Amino acid sequence: MPEAVLSNTDDTMGAFMPGPRCMRPPLADGPLSGLTFGLKDLFDVAGDITGFGNPDWASTHPPASGTTPAVTSLLEAGARLAGKTKTVELAYGLTGENVWYGTPVNPAAPDRFPGGSSCGSAAATAGHLVDFALGSDTGGSVRIPASYCGLFGIRPTHGAISLTGACPLAPGLDTLGWFARDATTLARIGDVLLPESPIAAAGPLLVVAEAWDNASAETASVLWPAVRRLETLFGPAIQIHPLPETLDTIFDRFRAVQAEEAWIALGSWIEQHAPNFGPGIKERFAAAKALDPSLARSGRAFRSTFRTRMHGLLAGGAIMVYPTSPGPAPMLGSDLTEQDRIRRATMGVTAIAGFAGLPELTLPVGIVDGAPVGLSLTAGPGRDRMLLAHTIQAARVLNLPC
Amino acid sequence: MPEAVLSNTDDTMGAFMPGPRCMRPPLADGPLSGLTFGLKDLFDVAGDITGFGNPDWASTHPPASGTTPAVTSLLEAGARLAGKTKTVELAYGLTGENVWYGTPVNPAAPDRFPGGSSCGSAAATAGHLVDFALGSDTGGSVRIPASYCGLFGIRPTHGAISLTGACPLAPGLDTLGWFARDATTLARIGDVLLPESPIAAAGPLLVVAEAWDNASAETASVLWPAVRRLETLFGPAIQIHPLPETLDTIFDRFRAVQAEEAWIALGSWIEQHAPNFGPGIKERFAAAKALDPSLARSGRAFRSTFRTRMHGLLAGGAIMVYPTSPGPAPMLGSDLTEQDRIRRATMGVTAIAGFAGLPELTLPVGIVDGAPVGLSLTAGPGRDRMLLAHTIQAARVLNLPC
Repeated sequence: MPEAVLSNTDDTMGAFMPGPRCMRPPLADGPLSGLTFGLKDLFDVAGDITGFGNPDWASTHPPASGTTPAVTSLLEAGARLAGKTKTVELAYGLTGENVWYGTPVNPAAPDRFPGGSSCGSAAATAGHLVDFALGSDTGGSVRIPASYCGLFGIRPTHGAISLTGACPLAPGLDTLGWFARDATTLARIGDVLLPESPIAAAGPLLVVAEAWDNASAETASVLWPAVRRLETLFGPAIQIHPLPETLDTIFDRFRAVQAEEAWIALGSWIEQHAPNFGPGIKERFAAAKALDPSLARSGRAFRSTFRTRMHGLLAGGAIMVYPTSPGPAPMLGSDLTEQDRIRRATMGVTAIAGFAGLPELTLPVGIVDGAPVGLSLTAGPGRDRMLLAHTIQAARVLNLPC
Repeated sequence: MPEAVLSNTDDTMGAFMPGPRCMRPPLADGPLSGLTFGLKDLFDVAGDITGFGNPDWASTHPPASGTTPAVTSLLEAGARLAGKTKTVELAYGLTGENVWYGTPVNPAAPDRFPGGSSCGSAAATAGHLVDFALGSDTGGSVRIPASYCGLFGIRPTHGAISLTGACPLAPGLDTLGWFARDATTLARIGDVLLPESPIAAAGPLLVVAEAWDNASAETASVLWPAVRRLETLFGPAIQIHPLPETLDTIFDRFRAVQAEEAWIALGSWIEQHAPNFGPGIKERFAAAKALDPSLARSGRAFRSTFRTRMHGLLAGGAIMVYPTSPGPAPMLGSDLTEQDRIRRATMGVTAIAGFAGLPELTLPVGIVDGAPVGLSLTAGPGRDRMLLAHTIQAARVLNLPC
């Protein structure tokens, strides 16, 4: 096989970073031999500049001196790196728009946003440019583009996979996740990247009422029959109301905690270099800088209590189930007001796993208005391998690619 | 109380960073009101440059834009920040030497090194300049100076406390820990910083034979009677041989994994700025750059297997007990060869909790050749609060400050 698997002219989705492709051959034969992958351009590969979605970031950083350990593990397991994929600037947005490098096409719904911030990784996987792709997920950046592009995607337990060599957004929330078109490939990546853990029993299914009420009526009705089918695997579905506050309040708390951490992690670079940011990003960092510390403080206190509560709820192997996003991706022409409304409705739900550090896996279950919507399974901390193993069975039951 | 609690002329230990002191008043009254603390100069405080122990680092970084969340939590709990404390350059060393800012005095043994890399935090606490101090621990950087300076010190579960705003050394191993002179103060800091968790039963005591054999004969005989006394709290002490390889091999594996992560995290800055490093640091980063990737690969594989094994061993609440360091601190005049010998003997044992991500707490139990040596209690992941609660009882049984 020639070294250059893809040329840039093959990138009809605009998923990869423009310019010379950052490719690396496998380091050995292994369980992933024959598979190619894309890598969100916030993970270091030795010798290449990590761009983080923003030209000023790229121009003020030297080439990376090392490679993110997860990337090395994949290359050692036989996979081939096909290139760096586009990210929303500094990973701080959910639509997938990037005004500097171009917004990747959503292959499953070309008139809609691909979702972000791991937009290029989702587009490259959905567009069959690669077999799988790595992204990062702080407040939904793998789960949301997976839902929008009709992919399997996982955000693992917080802290389960090293983020050495990854640009930070909010380290207390950041995770390394990935996308695949079928459940088995998704699980094979987990076999390589996740710490070993016993595969325990799973169930029952906990239907998170607040998240179902939050989804559009059509989304809820398209996804609901899948829950009934999953009862054959996980036991009876039980409706619960686990959230101590409204989704709207939880979104506000999440936004404050994320903003505080983002400013700690990135503010000094922003202050030093005064970079140009595209629409939305600029406003979010300005808000992060001006954040009322009491909002961050009460957000952190909420996170601690909520985390304990959710870990207790899921300790016996229970799995929460709910729509990954309240609906399909926003249309490409939608304005910032409409995008902010969708962002708020989306992140109240993504904050559940985000705040509690839980693994959440989204399955490409439904189509609404001709565009994909995902169904999420969320488990207790450290149960990532269990979740992946059961998702292969779930995909069979639901007639999804496995 | 005047704002300036300490002036630099009071710093007879040379524990603080020279120059204007980075002080912050409490943000509220709370459970830590009346306590002062020192902060290792690798944690961000908004508005101050974080120096990371190296003048070239300080001169190439802008003032921090945010404050490490743990620091904010302490200030909100009523504690007062008394200043930034010295660290070994880029936290990459265990003696506590800093040729640029001066090596802090070990108040418990002034003819010996204070231990590092959190040298200033240990010296400030042992010298009664502050009530407690924050450090970081990757391969022993809190545990070893605590043992050398006669302090209580804890390295928490990996990932339990956010490292947002902390300079990285090896993110897959780095933790935020702290020092105190008594067990109750140590636990009070944990109440503020650690995630909530149930305080479960603890025991039995597992005597890690390899680590006892590794300690000097005098150290082992001074510390052993404490194990017998702890049996009244934790149940019978059981001798085990839990390590699948020699301590020497485990040290080599740890060194490789740490070096790989350190080069990923810091190599690009080193390559871009060609900083001046003191003796030992320079050689370690040169070795990290030239590391054989197969050593790192086998180290990572070992870590994954070892982690699973140790988590299983400690799942029921068992606590491992062993000498924190093989002996007291090296003498100030010792040469690099002697220091390297001690480093190797020390880090084979510190790698146990380091590789497995476990909480380890050291108690100031013994005196050997007129200098302190600590005894470590190491628990399963997430059992930090349990360990702190039981240490108060242990301190009573052992007639230590509580």
